[in-house]
Amino acid sequence: MGRWEPNARERLSRAALELFTEQGYDSTTVAEIAERAGLTKRTFFRHFGDKREVLFGGQDALTALLADTITDAAASATPIEVIGAALEATVVVFGPERRTWSQQRQAVIDVNPELRERELLKLGTLTAAIGEALQKRGIPEPAASLGAEFGNLAFRTAFARWIDPANQQDFAELARRALTELREASATLG
Amino acid sequence: MGRWEPNARERLSRAALELFTEQGYDSTTVAEIAERAGLTKRTFFRHFGDKREVLFGGQDALTALLADTITDAAASATPIEVIGAALEATVVVFGPERRTWSQQRQAVIDVNPELRERELLKLGTLTAAIGEALQKRGIPEPAASLGAEFGNLAFRTAFARWIDPANQQDFAELARRALTELREASATLG
Repeated sequence: MGRWEPNARERLSRAALELFTEQGYDSTTVAEIAERAGLTKRTFFRHFGDKREVLFGGQDALTALLADTITDAAASATPIEVIGAALEATVVVFGPERRTWSQQRQAVIDVNPELRERELLKLGTLTAAIGEALQKRGIPEPAASLGAEFGNLAFRTAFARWIDPANQQDFAELARRALTELREASATLG
Repeated sequence: MGRWEPNARERLSRAALELFTEQGYDSTTVAEIAERAGLTKRTFFRHFGDKREVLFGGQDALTALLADTITDAAASATPIEVIGAALEATVVVFGPERRTWSQQRQAVIDVNPELRERELLKLGTLTAAIGEALQKRGIPEPAASLGAEFGNLAFRTAFARWIDPANQQDFAELARRALTELREASATLG
């Protein structure tokens, strides 16, 4: 182990995103990221398995946060209430200090087909985790999988609105609204 | 162009699936597939872009069939009726003569993480196509995306039941039932 570097993970994340934005994801090397952050490649690999993990490393924690909130919700809560509570809990991840980073990260992903695929797969994992957590509460199939898709769609809608430059609402409010809209839309399907 | 080979595409598909089943997907080469089918590599590449396309080449046609059925449905049909009609229309793809092939194909995919990822991405494309076709009928968001997820979940459930060795029902019946179950489950979410 090398010497302790304060905020190494955050410095590396910021440096990586700057470089991805400036010169593209594919053209950026780990050596350049470490150099920009004033750290070594070795320090980079203590924090991230590879370059892609800078963008997607946080998704496992997000998935765990959603699943844990579902598990810990009151027994009396309906599935939609449970999903709403899980989405609102992610406000600790998607706080105001994270918004610029999330906007830049999304811009990098949106122009790269391989990263877009990775994002879709990560969202698939997140949706499956919600479904499993709902099943563990005793919610039978296909209600658990359907509830998970409500969660996935509400999350994606809330996230897209949250990173919109004109947005002034916090993530929890946006998540609540997106879920309400989905429940209303569900009633119109016939 | 080489000489005309009767049923070349089907012979190549069968040969490929036999080899994938016997020796694994990763260990099988295009040369082996062509040899087993009694055809040349050149003929293989006239029908498939690569080895993976043997397993996933049919998904574009399936996606187009779903989208076209949605587009052509009666203007008076509700979104759920339209989705049901689209799923039932795929019985022309998932007929009895296709069932063994589909069972073997799924067994090959299920044991290969890379192929499972590809399948998830293809299902994502299919879901997006359903959503776009619903939007073109004037169904607003988020109802169109939610309807597409109903279609995706019903399709996956119906398909899993259809390839079950004990199954005796046809794909259209299974799709109808899966969609009805989803509508009922939706009412239980709270």
